[in-house]
Amino acid sequence: MRNFNENTITDAVQDRLTSPTPTRVHDVSAALVRHLHALVREIRPTFAEWETAIKFLTRIGEFCDENRQEFILLSDVLGVSMLVDAINYHAEGRETETTVLGPFFVERAEEYPNGSDISPEISGDALLISGVVCDADGRPLSGATVDIWHSDSEGYYDVQQLEKVDQLAMRGRFKTHDDGRFWCWSIKPAPYPIPHDGPVGDLLKAQGRHPWRPAHVHFMVTADGYEKLVTHIFVAGDPYLDSDVVFGVKDSLIEKLEQRLVGNVRSQTTDRPYWVLNREFRLKCKLDPKGTITG
Amino acid sequence: MRNFNENTITDAVQDRLTSPTPTRVHDVSAALVRHLHALVREIRPTFAEWETAIKFLTRIGEFCDENRQEFILLSDVLGVSMLVDAINYHAEGRETETTVLGPFFVERAEEYPNGSDISPEISGDALLISGVVCDADGRPLSGATVDIWHSDSEGYYDVQQLEKVDQLAMRGRFKTHDDGRFWCWSIKPAPYPIPHDGPVGDLLKAQGRHPWRPAHVHFMVTADGYEKLVTHIFVAGDPYLDSDVVFGVKDSLIEKLEQRLVGNVRSQTTDRPYWVLNREFRLKCKLDPKGTITG
Repeated sequence: MRNFNENTITDAVQDRLTSPTPTRVHDVSAALVRHLHALVREIRPTFAEWETAIKFLTRIGEFCDENRQEFILLSDVLGVSMLVDAINYHAEGRETETTVLGPFFVERAEEYPNGSDISPEISGDALLISGVVCDADGRPLSGATVDIWHSDSEGYYDVQQLEKVDQLAMRGRFKTHDDGRFWCWSIKPAPYPIPHDGPVGDLLKAQGRHPWRPAHVHFMVTADGYEKLVTHIFVAGDPYLDSDVVFGVKDSLIEKLEQRLVGNVRSQTTDRPYWVLNREFRLKCKLDPKGTITG
Repeated sequence: MRNFNENTITDAVQDRLTSPTPTRVHDVSAALVRHLHALVREIRPTFAEWETAIKFLTRIGEFCDENRQEFILLSDVLGVSMLVDAINYHAEGRETETTVLGPFFVERAEEYPNGSDISPEISGDALLISGVVCDADGRPLSGATVDIWHSDSEGYYDVQQLEKVDQLAMRGRFKTHDDGRFWCWSIKPAPYPIPHDGPVGDLLKAQGRHPWRPAHVHFMVTADGYEKLVTHIFVAGDPYLDSDVVFGVKDSLIEKLEQRLVGNVRSQTTDRPYWVLNREFRLKCKLDPKGTITG
């Protein structure tokens, strides 16, 4: 097979995908080739534009390291992450809704006892993050793992400024008690622009878009027999709720923070006023491959 | 705008592309979002599959450096590079046909006088590469720049084994004489597998495809007033002409190498038998933006 033109090459590439039986790799590859070629035929790039695309992807790769994931940012700003979320999220209206993982989750976050302060050295308004993890019927789940992470009062995550803070902060892992509850002290997060000093920032600028996300706290909740819940809780009243650069806002995930005076909180005394984010998280039962409930 | 589902998010992303007047960035971005979302809706990836895709792209980025371009490899094996070639190449049957640039062109190649040996330390059958650069009517062009690069007799390029050869070889830049001619000595290239120790190699394996390209010599020819010609000359009889992993073969670019005995070649004496690759390259006049010929 030789001498392909702009129409015959798509079949030619698909014909190379030899597999005695249909596989997921085959189906995904064939779909990728068809849609990618359709895109190229529509935009009809010059060689110089193709080179620009190669350089753009290469530069995204250069910006990736242990603390930054520029490909996730790209997926987020193109709406792909929330599209994957929408495809996978099938709530019956009882479980907590999901949203994007984002680029700032880190696997190595430390586990703390409930009531710990995860931001002892960070300036900002005090925030009590408190919640209960339940099944879809509201029965509390003990021993569930809750990962929490959020930005500081200027909108930066710890991993964006490790030269300044020299250790992880505003993030931690907790286990729920017998009553399903977890809680910790931190600071009130702010709205923030996603990192826009790299190629994804350049893309947003070229597209005439702002890079802002409304203030939120990330939660990842796992419990045996239940599907992993990846979500945020957004702060009510934020000016970016309707223009989140990654399209992640769902009404059910917005909570009003309550302000409290000094006092006694779960047998700890606090000497400054604080905000409270309180929330119930309902998990979905995991289905086994046959579709029966195992949780 | 909040609470997007798998259908509304595509319009939502496109609606963010604010631009007072239509621009190329706007059109390309809108097309990218539409086709990418259509792909995602067709394959319906799980979160784990989305993570696999992010890791795949990240790993491609990690394999890129000054001497390796894994994103070009990906574009090549998916047929995208040849599709861009097909879209841009509109021959009237007189100019030399184009094919992929490939990942091994290097800007810093040295310029040599005609007749130089660009592979003095490399083992392999001697090859005289010789050609003439003309306009579409066959009139020779003097002072044209010809970049030549190819693999060794085991199929490796210099930049793939710099720890072994410690300098560029099997590549050089030449200027055509008044008669349009250029020539140099090198060695006969071999068919070779594209670098398949990285993520693109893993993709080919998963797709059940071999990674081989037929033996060829790359040429890039530039001359004032003419469009840059990026092409190969393929060696006739190669077993991979019909299954080139990057879909780059065109019949008009296949040449039979002639074998010659020792003798006198353009006032140089050679003491070993050698092969000859001889070829005419016809360039296309450059059009100015109004479509008139400027060359």
